[in-house]
Amino acid sequence: MHLRIYIDRVDYISRLFSFMDLFNLYDSFSFFRILNSSDDIKYVIVVRKDLGMGVGKIAGQVGHACSSVVWQNPDHVAKWFNYGGQKKAVLKIQSEKELIDIIKKAQAYGIITTVIRDAGKTQIEPNTMTCCGFGPDYSTKLDKLTGHLKLL
Amino acid sequence: MHLRIYIDRVDYISRLFSFMDLFNLYDSFSFFRILNSSDDIKYVIVVRKDLGMGVGKIAGQVGHACSSVVWQNPDHVAKWFNYGGQKKAVLKIQSEKELIDIIKKAQAYGIITTVIRDAGKTQIEPNTMTCCGFGPDYSTKLDKLTGHLKLL
Repeated sequence: MHLRIYIDRVDYISRLFSFMDLFNLYDSFSFFRILNSSDDIKYVIVVRKDLGMGVGKIAGQVGHACSSVVWQNPDHVAKWFNYGGQKKAVLKIQSEKELIDIIKKAQAYGIITTVIRDAGKTQIEPNTMTCCGFGPDYSTKLDKLTGHLKLL
Repeated sequence: MHLRIYIDRVDYISRLFSFMDLFNLYDSFSFFRILNSSDDIKYVIVVRKDLGMGVGKIAGQVGHACSSVVWQNPDHVAKWFNYGGQKKAVLKIQSEKELIDIIKKAQAYGIITTVIRDAGKTQIEPNTMTCCGFGPDYSTKLDKLTGHLKLL
């Protein structure tokens, strides 16, 4: 009986270690992946240009996307801050439909999406989707999604 | 001897409770302060207009200020997200000197400042201060600092 418990504990501990190992290996792998190639981590924010928002309004909406993604995914963004220098790209899109199509694709790829809807106190209608953040994730992964869009 | 230890413990526990009470009271107070008056919590980002940055560049810099403040002060921003709806104001300023003056005042008032310097890969010189975030903090406190500035 005592022996059985002992074996169970050893098994438990070894499983724990191998899990940690796996985790570290994965982490080192992605660390070298960033260091050795152009495959950096970035955060892409796609802004709707068809709404006619002013500069300050656009900046505020992009700001919402940036603070929300950090608040909602504190563990996920650590790598972006530590190795990626919190790199950002702000791109433009001409319609809500196009943006929704990209959001659907992102969700299929498993990329984090941060949809920003405006309270509508100034300039635009309440609950309008103004922009959407994608990632932070590897550039190669994000470029498949938003590579065709131009910088704002 | 035993009695002494017992009294010490009671004293310790009661002190702990009164500290927690104080903390909760303070929290409830600021919660009601937000609910009952116009004294909400906001985050103000002041952008330098004299650098001639484009819309996308400005949005990116404001985004840096927004993600940095959440990453660097996770406990402090909680109230802003929970009660303040992460309210933001993007304001403009015409020179670096004016911005530095406001930063000095903010530090004297005990307001968190998030200075953003650009890596200078696009549009402007490396290490230029592009914008600065103040707060998140009470509107009345921030307005003393930036109330004279106009919306971007």
